[in-house]
Amino acid sequence: MSDPILVDHVRLRYFIALAFEAVGMPAADARTVASLMADADLQGSDGHGVIRLVPYLKRIRSGGVNLKPDIRIEKERAAMALVNGDNAMGHLVMKRAAEIAIEKAKTAGVAWVGTRWSNHAGPASLYAKMMLPHDMLGLYFAVGNANHLPPWGGVEMLLSTNPVAAAIPAGEEPPIVLDMATTVAAYGKVKAKASRGEMMPEGWMVDREGKPLLDPKRAAEGFLLPIGGYKGYGLALVVGLLAGTLNGAAMGRDVIDFNADAQTATNTGQAIVAIDPSAFGEVAEFKAAVDKLIRDLRGSERMAGVEHIFMPGEQSQQKAARQKKEGIALAPSLMQTLDRLAEQLDILPLRTN
Amino acid sequence: MSDPILVDHVRLRYFIALAFEAVGMPAADARTVASLMADADLQGSDGHGVIRLVPYLKRIRSGGVNLKPDIRIEKERAAMALVNGDNAMGHLVMKRAAEIAIEKAKTAGVAWVGTRWSNHAGPASLYAKMMLPHDMLGLYFAVGNANHLPPWGGVEMLLSTNPVAAAIPAGEEPPIVLDMATTVAAYGKVKAKASRGEMMPEGWMVDREGKPLLDPKRAAEGFLLPIGGYKGYGLALVVGLLAGTLNGAAMGRDVIDFNADAQTATNTGQAIVAIDPSAFGEVAEFKAAVDKLIRDLRGSERMAGVEHIFMPGEQSQQKAARQKKEGIALAPSLMQTLDRLAEQLDILPLRTN
Repeated sequence: MSDPILVDHVRLRYFIALAFEAVGMPAADARTVASLMADADLQGSDGHGVIRLVPYLKRIRSGGVNLKPDIRIEKERAAMALVNGDNAMGHLVMKRAAEIAIEKAKTAGVAWVGTRWSNHAGPASLYAKMMLPHDMLGLYFAVGNANHLPPWGGVEMLLSTNPVAAAIPAGEEPPIVLDMATTVAAYGKVKAKASRGEMMPEGWMVDREGKPLLDPKRAAEGFLLPIGGYKGYGLALVVGLLAGTLNGAAMGRDVIDFNADAQTATNTGQAIVAIDPSAFGEVAEFKAAVDKLIRDLRGSERMAGVEHIFMPGEQSQQKAARQKKEGIALAPSLMQTLDRLAEQLDILPLRTN
Repeated sequence: MSDPILVDHVRLRYFIALAFEAVGMPAADARTVASLMADADLQGSDGHGVIRLVPYLKRIRSGGVNLKPDIRIEKERAAMALVNGDNAMGHLVMKRAAEIAIEKAKTAGVAWVGTRWSNHAGPASLYAKMMLPHDMLGLYFAVGNANHLPPWGGVEMLLSTNPVAAAIPAGEEPPIVLDMATTVAAYGKVKAKASRGEMMPEGWMVDREGKPLLDPKRAAEGFLLPIGGYKGYGLALVVGLLAGTLNGAAMGRDVIDFNADAQTATNTGQAIVAIDPSAFGEVAEFKAAVDKLIRDLRGSERMAGVEHIFMPGEQSQQKAARQKKEGIALAPSLMQTLDRLAEQLDILPLRTN
């Protein structure tokens, strides 16, 4: 493998936005989506960043995404809304859903916003984190865009990696940001392994006989394993019911595999929850308690050989800070793809030389 | 091991209520707690049923529980409440919290109720299931009452098994009820193994060197493992922040080990969420979609050797139905304990002969 190429994050954002504009996305929307995709790369969620640009563009050109959507509230009450994404890019739908949740939580204390007719929106943590500048807690649930998980004991892949994210503000400490698939590995990580030509560790996937599957290029022959066995199966199912079925979005057999089908609207469902800690007590006291907890955990006795006890999200935050300064590391093969894309679209290339 | 003794569930409920009344609990409260404890045994949550009676009574006699509590709403908004349990039995606090959540969800669409100064309340599923008769979805999170889980990479047990439960109503099918500790095994299951004289499977616990610990009688020498490794650690932490820290309840180092200390108020925190599907669309359509999903999963192709694909909660529901008819199976050693208890308290014994 050759060395990764470092790219400035602002330049990456600019490049992604130009690419979307070139296929007809309104400039403001292109900037929003590009910014969230570059944020994904910045924090190391490389399965959800610019690597998705080509498939997203393919879907747009195939008519699988609505570039002039009317993203609207279909149902609402004091503490909830159901947002119809009108088949827009998922990033736009979810940003809007998060904004609605924050507004409603300001008065109701807690708000839950579900989406339908949305699309893939990138890493779950991006949306849970939108609550943090408002001193709120965020939770996010989503139905994944391809089924890679059978029910426990089954071999038919009727469930996705349905992720969960949570963002909890701290005081002086960085926030706690959990972002996890309900499978041992997210499918994006399998794709990233394949693109880097690496093998997967045992425990990520099995074949239809239940035997370990290690080559990510053979991923289509097997399926992902849920965390904690039947528990992860239950969690993936419940997340899908909350984010999909409840909203009238696709779940189970109705999920469109967006890798195989670039035309059919995915009717992706997501759910975002905003919780205002000021409704429960003094925000400063809450944040101080989170700080204390973080320090207690981080400063506690470690197992022999362990250098540091990490908080959820700590490594992503460190990576984001480093890549903001030094540039985002992109695989040379990905850079070649983006070079060709720039030529095709006749836009300023990402590569500078 | 000798054969279990079968006990009628109504008789069990009556016995538990008498025991609580004998130590001064008001009759109505005793009936409520007894009913929830017997329900725990009925559904096979035997780590949380009558096996807890003696420790609960010990705590009550030690002054560790308030028998004349003023369970009250401390803070509230349209979609949330913070309930101060006044150190009552957790079952009473959580039943009240669930009722408040249901009432608020009827207008707000979704409601989140947190508790503090609560206590151990038995299996998580009992409270999530309280939404089902109201055609609502229920979620439940709790801080466990003893720390058995270190942060990932650590050896100091600063986290508990912090459980998650979810109940989702179906139409013609039984509801989906998930009830899971964020550890591979709940500590109650370790206790149940110990009381039955059985060994634990590998993967439940490790010792301080990270080596497998199989003897449940040596449980104090090691700690539980989280599901999915660092993911389960993150999940346990987030559940604790939502159910504990947010409510001003104990979390981390502040958690009282209720096995070791029967006097200090535990300040247990829990959170319950009620979601009204009628706010999102037609309830009948939602239930029909849940039915379809259940049938798709259950009827899907199975791995060789697998007899049946289970839904979360299906086995508990079957066990409850069977034990309701045939009686609840109690270990002879537990029955002896309850015989001695009946004598001490001078109440009608559970054993009939």
